[in-house]
Amino acid sequence: MTQKKSSTLAALGEFGLISRITARVTPHESVITGIGDDAAVTALTPGMRLLTSTDMLLEDVHFRRAWHDPFTLGRKSLAVSISDIAAMGGIPHWALLSLAIPPDLPLDFIDDLMRGFQEVATEYNVTLIGGDTCSSRNGLTISVTIMGEQYPDLIVRRSGAQPDDDIWVTGTLGDAAFALSQLENGTAVSESLLSRLLNPAPRVSVALAFAEAGLATAMIDVSDGIRADFGHIADMSGVGGTLRVDDLPLSGMFRSVTADLGAIPFEYALTGGEDYELCFTARNSNREKIVACAKKCGVAATRVGIVTSFSGVTVITRDGTPCTAPFNGFNHFT
Amino acid sequence: MTQKKSSTLAALGEFGLISRITARVTPHESVITGIGDDAAVTALTPGMRLLTSTDMLLEDVHFRRAWHDPFTLGRKSLAVSISDIAAMGGIPHWALLSLAIPPDLPLDFIDDLMRGFQEVATEYNVTLIGGDTCSSRNGLTISVTIMGEQYPDLIVRRSGAQPDDDIWVTGTLGDAAFALSQLENGTAVSESLLSRLLNPAPRVSVALAFAEAGLATAMIDVSDGIRADFGHIADMSGVGGTLRVDDLPLSGMFRSVTADLGAIPFEYALTGGEDYELCFTARNSNREKIVACAKKCGVAATRVGIVTSFSGVTVITRDGTPCTAPFNGFNHFT
Repeated sequence: MTQKKSSTLAALGEFGLISRITARVTPHESVITGIGDDAAVTALTPGMRLLTSTDMLLEDVHFRRAWHDPFTLGRKSLAVSISDIAAMGGIPHWALLSLAIPPDLPLDFIDDLMRGFQEVATEYNVTLIGGDTCSSRNGLTISVTIMGEQYPDLIVRRSGAQPDDDIWVTGTLGDAAFALSQLENGTAVSESLLSRLLNPAPRVSVALAFAEAGLATAMIDVSDGIRADFGHIADMSGVGGTLRVDDLPLSGMFRSVTADLGAIPFEYALTGGEDYELCFTARNSNREKIVACAKKCGVAATRVGIVTSFSGVTVITRDGTPCTAPFNGFNHFT
Repeated sequence: MTQKKSSTLAALGEFGLISRITARVTPHESVITGIGDDAAVTALTPGMRLLTSTDMLLEDVHFRRAWHDPFTLGRKSLAVSISDIAAMGGIPHWALLSLAIPPDLPLDFIDDLMRGFQEVATEYNVTLIGGDTCSSRNGLTISVTIMGEQYPDLIVRRSGAQPDDDIWVTGTLGDAAFALSQLENGTAVSESLLSRLLNPAPRVSVALAFAEAGLATAMIDVSDGIRADFGHIADMSGVGGTLRVDDLPLSGMFRSVTADLGAIPFEYALTGGEDYELCFTARNSNREKIVACAKKCGVAATRVGIVTSFSGVTVITRDGTPCTAPFNGFNHFT
């Protein structure tokens, strides 16, 4: 532990906080002017396109301070944004961070949040180039904008899926959603499942590898459950799909902690959300290449379904029987 | 008035709201993929640099629903962001909008907010390319990221002011701050002052004209009061400056409504904030060119001080006496 001063946010002030944050940023060479002017100035690689996405995280909606320690919250707030650039096959570069901070929030909390944010930034070669800070009357709000780039031919959209393509997913599904349900029930949660919820890892390298090899016809990151998120691919591609529930990849820990429930609770894997894995489609002639490409990146890739020419997403069991899940992914407002 | 359906946000849902917003967006040709994928894809003009800025507006911190009708709130939320691109001499292009929405907020409010946002987007040739929507437990939060571009040689930073440069400001100062003080006191407010507070106009065309003519050595938009904001230019340029309080440009309405106060309340113009005018510095050999350039754009430009080689910002009266203002611009947390 580094020695911490007992200074408060009020004593530090807005510009003190900005200086404190800026002092810890080491800009990437693409950053011409970073934090400190009216706008940041950055240079794109000639020929590449700009990729941009934004996410807002609200206290008691997206996170609870009782569950998320500030360091992993800082990590997650950037990681989930980077996941959106990964889902396009893009290279993440620059981030903007806005914080609305309750005046009674300890300065240590912000320091730890920024340490986590910066750690993920360093891991993925992302530079914080700007943002906004203000006082909040109602809980902490974190708004992150992420920017990246990619050559136009390598960008993978949601709209490229074709009938008879395989539907794939990286890693395992349902871990984060099951951990959340255990937190909500006050049950003890296994460390590895909790880590999937609190500290997700965006799949940047494998997504880039798929993009550069031209293997993925469509791609999305799984944040609202694979059923809903594959549904977005289907809608944007003008196709449908069949997901084989028994093929959904489950972690050993997920299987272990749910073993005494009688049946496997596939709903967490299907509709749980916050997996931050990649769901993608690919020609069925590329199966071996995909497995090899994923393996090289240290990530599993599992075939979980088939794209259909008719619309609608059907979930089937091993014997081909359609099964109905209790809900269709997370949806704000409803 | 267009006929409005009595549908609610809960009935519409998150994706319904996004579709409703997207339907009203006409993308600029630089937008390759707009709303609806994991990230937006846009193309920069070859040779130009990317300019990026972000602002967060919180209910009861930055705005009150009692004072800001949703239409002008939508206008202002984009206008203040565009002002940051203007302050760099940049061309605004693309915006991301995140909304955290209280579940009881009428859908009409969001519709009107988006109409205002879109109106300013159209006025300044900006395309909404993405964002995030979620449910808020505590008031409306609006987070806007704005992106623009400019050739590297034309970008105007805060850091280019030189000793003996003139300090200039566009338009008039203090109108918005005086209107805010009247709202806070429950006094009747003149329409023209209120409009400066609720519906500010970013100075894009005159800023671009200054940048393209190479006239401004440093520039900033005045959001925290000219004393504080020129202070940022001074700090970043390693210089200081003298501001002549009697030369600060005041609107006729400001002079009229403050006429019975005995002395002119210069503190609104000096430290009030939310003017969204441009403060810039320029060689004293360019005075005539600046006045002509501003006139061509339909904006006044007024010389209000001189850059000094020694640090610190001094405010002087007509006879050269230093005067002390009651505070030093708006600062969150303190």
